Amino acid sequence: MPFYPLNETNILDYIRQRPALADFFPADAPVTVREVGDGNLNFVFVVENQADPANSMVIKQALPYLRVLGESWPLTQARARYEAQALEEHNRYAPGLAPELYDFNEEMAAIAMEYLGTHQIMRKPMVAREKFPHFADHISSFLARTLYFTSDHYLSGPEKKLLQAKFVNEELRKLQEDFVYTNPYKESEENNWNPLVDDEVQAVRSDPVLKMAIAELKDAYMNHAEALIHADLHTGSIMLNQEDTRVIDPEFAFFGPMGYDVGAVLQNLILNYLSHFAHTPDPEVRADYQAWILETVRAIWNQFAAKFDQLWVENARPDSELMPLDYWDFPGGEEAFAAYRQRILQHILEETAGHGGVKFLRRMMGVVSVWDISSIEDPAKRAVAERAAIRIGKRWILERRRFTGIDDLIQVVLDETAAVTV
Amino acid sequence: MPFYPLNETNILDYIRQRPALADFFPADAPVTVREVGDGNLNFVFVVENQADPANSMVIKQALPYLRVLGESWPLTQARARYEAQALEEHNRYAPGLAPELYDFNEEMAAIAMEYLGTHQIMRKPMVAREKFPHFADHISSFLARTLYFTSDHYLSGPEKKLLQAKFVNEELRKLQEDFVYTNPYKESEENNWNPLVDDEVQAVRSDPVLKMAIAELKDAYMNHAEALIHADLHTGSIMLNQEDTRVIDPEFAFFGPMGYDVGAVLQNLILNYLSHFAHTPDPEVRADYQAWILETVRAIWNQFAAKFDQLWVENARPDSELMPLDYWDFPGGEEAFAAYRQRILQHILEETAGHGGVKFLRRMMGVVSVWDISSIEDPAKRAVAERAAIRIGKRWILERRRFTGIDDLIQVVLDETAAVTV
Repeated sequence: MPFYPLNETNILDYIRQRPALADFFPADAPVTVREVGDGNLNFVFVVENQADPANSMVIKQALPYLRVLGESWPLTQARARYEAQALEEHNRYAPGLAPELYDFNEEMAAIAMEYLGTHQIMRKPMVAREKFPHFADHISSFLARTLYFTSDHYLSGPEKKLLQAKFVNEELRKLQEDFVYTNPYKESEENNWNPLVDDEVQAVRSDPVLKMAIAELKDAYMNHAEALIHADLHTGSIMLNQEDTRVIDPEFAFFGPMGYDVGAVLQNLILNYLSHFAHTPDPEVRADYQAWILETVRAIWNQFAAKFDQLWVENARPDSELMPLDYWDFPGGEEAFAAYRQRILQHILEETAGHGGVKFLRRMMGVVSVWDISSIEDPAKRAVAERAAIRIGKRWILERRRFTGIDDLIQVVLDETAAVTV
Repeated sequence: MPFYPLNETNILDYIRQRPALADFFPADAPVTVREVGDGNLNFVFVVENQADPANSMVIKQALPYLRVLGESWPLTQARARYEAQALEEHNRYAPGLAPELYDFNEEMAAIAMEYLGTHQIMRKPMVAREKFPHFADHISSFLARTLYFTSDHYLSGPEKKLLQAKFVNEELRKLQEDFVYTNPYKESEENNWNPLVDDEVQAVRSDPVLKMAIAELKDAYMNHAEALIHADLHTGSIMLNQEDTRVIDPEFAFFGPMGYDVGAVLQNLILNYLSHFAHTPDPEVRADYQAWILETVRAIWNQFAAKFDQLWVENARPDSELMPLDYWDFPGGEEAFAAYRQRILQHILEETAGHGGVKFLRRMMGVVSVWDISSIEDPAKRAVAERAAIRIGKRWILERRRFTGIDDLIQVVLDETAAVTV
């Protein structure tokens, strides 16, 4: 079947031709179709069965071009495949924390998945100061499970390499390599930043020590194939409600450093924290919500570390590659294994700070900020958040090797916002 | 064409059917065929044109099984393909330092390549104390060129990933992961070691700090995809004479840490150094050859570092990924770029020591030693070399982060052999 664009009129026929989807909408079912995507990169159709809401679905179709880049079909086709493959792994290892995958059609670049009708994208309710009491538990489970089970601490060497070979993803990775780790720190026409923080931006671009550190982190990002990472895990890739959390849109997935995903989550929460200096003028209301954010940041890391360690102890197999359990079978070996696990978690913490730090910087001086910050209309108020974000990012990068726990990262946030008076 | 085993009788017909090879042996040419492989994993045929020696060739055919492991055809087929692909890259980036590749036939798992009639495998003449005055120059060029040009310092992100995707090589990598980084340091039935150094072997297997370091190096070996490495670059994979040097047998090639290849070369030279405490009783003769080895070790590293740096300065392109040159375009940026290159070379030095150190250990207590050492018949004399090798290996691993130049690695060799009296 050659590619054709789906629309509200032809989509039901398409669905009924797919064996995996045929039972969702009987011939007499009242069905509504809405297109909710931005129409630029993907179509996103919500197809609801009004008689039986559980039999609804979302169809996401990648368009055969990326308008913004002028790219051609092979990129687009691969994009949908990487997303479907990653969803499959997320459902395998973290069931209930990603939308269920119903069907993938490579020729049509179309993914059918669970409709999350009662969830919302996390970024907006966080600007409205909504708290999510289960979020730290859920996202730390997602991180620990997807990262542990796709790493060499669980998989055998060949299993890992064959899975990795399915995620070459060279075009989408190039976007992140350019727009996160390179272009924001040099002359590049798509960069934009608030003129009121121009001093901070220029200082970043001409700081030799910082730029060597960013180059080192880019090397780790490109080459350290620790686990299958989501690679775009900001609060716009999380849908949730008061009871349930799902991670969506994993089309950037590849085998990279674990700290990148953890850092993305924490850094996005802290950008939201900073945005409330503008969004929430009432100091008490603001302090309350900011305190919830920092508690959540702390809980995410600490729960992530505990869950990752527990998964490792409980799941390592004789053919797990790093290392098989009997490698630690000597007097004192149990303690050495525990110390080795601790060292790996320390490494992930350092890279959480490092990659998270780079992501602070890129949002402040690269091609695109985050809505939490960009929705602050007054440039002076926005600059308060932006200046703090740049300073936190720099320190997370430069001081990452001295951090021994999440409180060290949080202390930097407190330090760099201590003088804020709004 | 289905697979069939080549032999002295059918090989000329095979050659004449291959378009790339048809011109080597005209119908009236006097041709001799010799099978020179060990017959266990591969056939290696030398096919000589007696009338026109330049039109001779070697045909290497991977057998459809690895007898020692009971593996099946897909492994074997892939093995020949990885070797052919690596030879292609080596010829592209280091022409004249690998045998020329004439033809690869995937179905037959057969590689046709240049016949090196005047070269010998390096291990044996080194036991006979032959010196090779151009070896340091040649092998440092091979290392610098193959590693630089397949790294992100030269390639763009997508170029590198697409090349990397051709070298999954999951089965042969598993062999090295097991037999270099895991099994020698735990109970494993194939391990063997000299009972006279049992104390050293048991100490390695129960040293928690050392075992954590080996696990860390295994992680780097498996996951740090810095460049296309040969991954088996011992002196048995080098053919040379007084004028010329070629690196052969790259079937283990994959994208891994650069220090692994450099470490393999240096560590094999030093194992030969240690073997002369037994092979060369005359102290003056021995001292002279050992001095040549250490000079060569020093020259290889120093020339490698200088050549790698020069290649980088001269070849980095706007789309080289780590980093594009204009990333360093700021006041002081030239110095920062130089400092960054220096940092990468320091990292390679550390990993040369680390991976080289692991390879010392594995040769002394794993499945297979090297002929330089195993050919010492007297166990007591062999133990002198083996004990020193284990001690050097441990120190290269544990002290790798304090090493700042090749003389630090050499000093360890001198320290650990200072008390040898034979």
